Amino acid sequence: MPSSELPPVEETAAGFHIIDGEDHLDEIFDNDIRISRSFSRFQLNEEEYRENYGKVIRELLATGEHKFFVAVDKYGRYLGHAWACLKIDTVDFVPSAYILDIETLFPGRGIGTALIERAEEWAKRMGARKISLRVEVNNPARNWYSKKGYSERAVFMEKPI
Amino acid sequence: MPSSELPPVEETAAGFHIIDGEDHLDEIFDNDIRISRSFSRFQLNEEEYRENYGKVIRELLATGEHKFFVAVDKYGRYLGHAWACLKIDTVDFVPSAYILDIETLFPGRGIGTALIERAEEWAKRMGARKISLRVEVNNPARNWYSKKGYSERAVFMEKPI
Repeated sequence: MPSSELPPVEETAAGFHIIDGEDHLDEIFDNDIRISRSFSRFQLNEEEYRENYGKVIRELLATGEHKFFVAVDKYGRYLGHAWACLKIDTVDFVPSAYILDIETLFPGRGIGTALIERAEEWAKRMGARKISLRVEVNNPARNWYSKKGYSERAVFMEKPI
Repeated sequence: MPSSELPPVEETAAGFHIIDGEDHLDEIFDNDIRISRSFSRFQLNEEEYRENYGKVIRELLATGEHKFFVAVDKYGRYLGHAWACLKIDTVDFVPSAYILDIETLFPGRGIGTALIERAEEWAKRMGARKISLRVEVNNPARNWYSKKGYSERAVFMEKPI
């Protein structure tokens, strides 16, 4: 049926499933570019933000082995995604899977948990020895990761100039 | 005079000065490969470590604009180094200088301070809006950076698999 006749995605999100994300990169980055902006502490105009966002994505994709997963409802509509990248860790010097991104449109419904579990399975299969991620100091996700077995290894410090 | 007749570097380190490091990359990485190993939480054999160390360095050098400084004594002998890299920040989407490395053979003599100041000057000149770095949770350098005006922005979490 045409998408205008589908039930609202809020209603169908509970019946989500996780699929490979490689065919959904446009949706992934369309959602990410919107969400990511809220984490920036700098005021950027639309053009400057889009240009720099593009540079960041290209630089991230330039090294390592990448994997995407998306959560979709039964009509195939986007609900969230995970982006992982396998690289040699810069401190431990073993293969590590970095979770570069994990996002869900509807928190609290198990979508994030299902996404991180799929990313962890992939990491294990790829021979990663650990899984790493960055989380902002005030982000409530810090607790969420902690409950999932992640512990704090390093801090990211910065100074404006 | 031949280097065997020079006074020990411990004695000349106090009279250090900072120079561009691009002509000293061999010394920088020879020192770094030795020091970096102590931060790894994994047991790696020599061959595996050297191979993975090389991959990490090549991947870091593959993106961004890089700058090296070295501290030398009056005979030009290596005392420490700083490695900075200008990139678009993955969270703030502004140009940021990442301090990838700052090391000194003789802590407490102002070498690290002089190195970080030079890296910060470079960052400012290059148009960076901030300076970023990663420091391990138990590393006393965390306090040192804090005294130099760096504040904690994010945490690096990880889980072994």
